[in-house]
Amino acid sequence: MLNPELISLENQVFRCYLGWSAVLVLKIFATGIYTGLMRFFTATFANPEDLMSPKLKVKFDDPNVERVRRAHRNDLENILPFFAIGLLYVLTNPAAFLAINLFRAVGISRIVHTLVYAVVVVPQPSRALAFFVALGATVYMALQVILSAAF
Amino acid sequence: MLNPELISLENQVFRCYLGWSAVLVLKIFATGIYTGLMRFFTATFANPEDLMSPKLKVKFDDPNVERVRRAHRNDLENILPFFAIGLLYVLTNPAAFLAINLFRAVGISRIVHTLVYAVVVVPQPSRALAFFVALGATVYMALQVILSAAF
Amino acid sequence: MLNPELISLENQVFRCYLGWSAVLVLKIFATGIYTGLMRFFTATFANPEDLMSPKLKVKFDDPNVERVRRAHRNDLENILPFFAIGLLYVLTNPAAFLAINLFRAVGISRIVHTLVYAVVVVPQPSRALAFFVALGATVYMALQVILSAAF
Repeated sequence: MLNPELISLENQVFRCYLGWSAVLVLKIFATGIYTGLMRFFTATFANPEDLMSPKLKVKFDDPNVERVRRAHRNDLENILPFFAIGLLYVLTNPAAFLAINLFRAVGISRIVHTLVYAVVVVPQPSRALAFFVALGATVYMALQVILSAAF
Repeated sequence: MLNPELISLENQVFRCYLGWSAVLVLKIFATGIYTGLMRFFTATFANPEDLMSPKLKVKFDDPNVERVRRAHRNDLENILPFFAIGLLYVLTNPAAFLAINLFRAVGISRIVHTLVYAVVVVPQPSRALAFFVALGATVYMALQVILSAAF
Repeated sequence: MLNPELISLENQVFRCYLGWSAVLVLKIFATGIYTGLMRFFTATFANPEDLMSPKLKVKFDDPNVERVRRAHRNDLENILPFFAIGLLYVLTNPAAFLAINLFRAVGISRIVHTLVYAVVVVPQPSRALAFFVALGATVYMALQVILSAAF
């Protein structure tokens, strides 16, 4: 059932995992760059050596910067575990249709999560919805992996 | 020595890594959900769009919420590197008895860490002990991986 | 093209990824231990149960501790995605010379990043340079993975 041959570009499920993982890595990095840009626009720097002018002081409470940082941290809490469990889920040889749509659900909903959290600030429950779609799909994968390990 | 055949459900070491990784992904997510519940119970919301009532204001310093967030961040710092190094350690073809008990040590001590940090708050050194057991096991795996890469 | 045989100690590209990943896991953990030591030296504890003396109070704003914590968090944002994308990049069967130097660039620049951020505090642009070298190399890997998944 578990088979190293599954880790191959010939396997469309692995290929889909590969593509969405790389897109989500770029998405996490984009949020990091966005934090940096927001620091420049609002002149909010956390380190004395980053201050662009002697008139500036370190500052930790700009609401725009903190909002992007919360979105970024939420990525670490949710996307990074997906990288691990997504690969292990591929190795359980899941049905292609289901697996591919789960990967799409995680990828799209995590991009939407960042957009509605840190870019346009859409009212709730948009962010909660994006959060729970990705969470639900990843939890399902984790449960399938546990079943594969147990039996 | 390193062999893609090791990545197979037939390999009980990989199977053990697979199971504990999935359990720890669920544990990380559970801590995230617990943060959310704690925010509701204490009415501590970080975003204006999350406020459930016009009387509430954003708040960042609730000690119960911050405690769960510290436990959650400690997971990111310690469990996520384990996901990467655990898989690479399986590929070094370690002795099954040792590897399986290292995975159990990481899995159990990280669950205990969250319980004594954020759920029941047991006095020290319980949290420090749980932290160092998991850290020691993961450091050992990393050193074995470095030895395999070097020779 | 993608081939599970690439995940083998016989493959020098995988071997290089293996070694640098393990070194970077130890580097992340070292930053965690360094945070703990800094908390002791500055008597800055975030939890009541950690206070070493009844005269101490919990404290969250020591600039030295917060600096190490920012370096640590930056690791989570940048090194952990590298663990995922580096493995997938190995599976795209890249040219050995390029791949090995990209892994070295990530490994060395992330160690330099921590040194100039949290240990010696070198003026900018040293930290920015270390940050962007590692980011650029990881983004390149992610783009190559996307190309492999798409064609």
